[in-house]
Amino acid sequence: MYTLYYSPGSASMLVHLLLLEIGAPHELRRVDLDAGAQRDPEYLRLNPGGVVPTLIVDGQPRWETAALALLLVERHTEANLAPPPSSPARGEYLQWVLYLANSLQPAFRWWFYPEAGGAEAEVVLAAARRRIEAGWDRLDAHLGGGGPYLLGAEVSLADLYATMLMRWSRKMPRPATEWPHLAALARRVKARPSWRRLYAIEGLTEWT
Amino acid sequence: MYTLYYSPGSASMLVHLLLLEIGAPHELRRVDLDAGAQRDPEYLRLNPGGVVPTLIVDGQPRWETAALALLLVERHTEANLAPPPSSPARGEYLQWVLYLANSLQPAFRWWFYPEAGGAEAEVVLAAARRRIEAGWDRLDAHLGGGGPYLLGAEVSLADLYATMLMRWSRKMPRPATEWPHLAALARRVKARPSWRRLYAIEGLTEWT
Ligand SMILES: N[C@@H](CCC(=O)N[C@@H](CS)C(=O)NCC(=O)O)C(=O)O
Ligand SMILES: N[C@@H](CCC(=O)N[C@@H](CS)C(=O)NCC(=O)O)C(=O)O
Repeated sequence: MYTLYYSPGSASMLVHLLLLEIGAPHELRRVDLDAGAQRDPEYLRLNPGGVVPTLIVDGQPRWETAALALLLVERHTEANLAPPPSSPARGEYLQWVLYLANSLQPAFRWWFYPEAGGAEAEVVLAAARRRIEAGWDRLDAHLGGGGPYLLGAEVSLADLYATMLMRWSRKMPRPATEWPHLAALARRVKARPSWRRLYAIEGLTEWT
Repeated sequence: MYTLYYSPGSASMLVHLLLLEIGAPHELRRVDLDAGAQRDPEYLRLNPGGVVPTLIVDGQPRWETAALALLLVERHTEANLAPPPSSPARGEYLQWVLYLANSLQPAFRWWFYPEAGGAEAEVVLAAARRRIEAGWDRLDAHLGGGGPYLLGAEVSLADLYATMLMRWSRKMPRPATEWPHLAALARRVKARPSWRRLYAIEGLTEWT
């Protein structure tokens, strides 16, 4: 039994989606980010960074979206969301998951939390936008040379992760879906039953 | 046999250090970043981002520092640099490795490559510095509550990764070693034979 601290449509979405893909029993606890509940002392004891997601695993609070995703996928190999450690595709799997975790997701953090105001915020936002769009260029070029998924014929965690990030770009000047191969990938992931169930449970409406 | 494309003291250092820790046979190919060799068309075919490291694994070029590190550690379990997938410590291992990959290393990318000039660069540098120092606060507090390693009694990939990042802060206004528990961790990692051999091979002199 897992317990997920989440906020609709936020980074916790990837972990929630994986719990649904895997079919793992779980409880949801909503953290009201607008009300600042992520900075309540009680929540900070679970997650010292004051962010979602937090996942309770075997009674222990764990965090970092990509870490939780890698952990769930390796604990539930029957969901087939990663090539096994012995597979020749393993390096490519880790490469794309870590590309998203190290380059694209952090640029979104700067985009959504420039931690500056006025002209300073504009500088940070412009830099974040350049990095995000460079990420779409890279992913789209890769999909164009193979696909339809990041690892080729088989869907993996990397595709679910990329699609969550694409959703975050929906109000940007150039959303990810303006890149054709990324748009095709998003269509596939959005057609999965897990994605539709997540939308219903989290009450999401945009980017259907 | 692995082949590592590297530049002394750069992100490739973590992968090099792991190859030495593991004792895996490998060849080194130096990429002259100052001369722009990372943007040679031949290198871009291996690494479309034009960065180091690239590691040739079973004949395939793979990249992303943290991905290569996770891959080497899981391919060479005898080096004992990670709790096994079935271990209760696995979630904490992935959490710290991904914290470094998702928060701290990306902030260094902004610090070293503000991709702006003049006053704009100052804005980006100040924001990057705040994020890096927040990272040291977090890691130091965690080590203060346990330690001496990030996972407690046993060294892991997370400590080697954190120490490489600490080294990158050596010329910053507040280097990581001003945080006492981080300084103690750095001393331990720097005393490892692998760290000393890496210094000799890469010809590093600073931060001894
Ligand atoms: N490195 C963290 C970042 C998570 C994160 O940025 N979460 C955002 C929502 S997408 C959050 O909780 N924001 C609230 C806040 O920072 O106050 C992870 O990957 O889990
Ligand atoms: N996300 C990449 C980033 C690697 C990176 O930033 N490498 C730097 C050296 S530390 C580099 O190659 N810089 C040369 C350049 O960007 O031109 C990784 O983690 O491997």
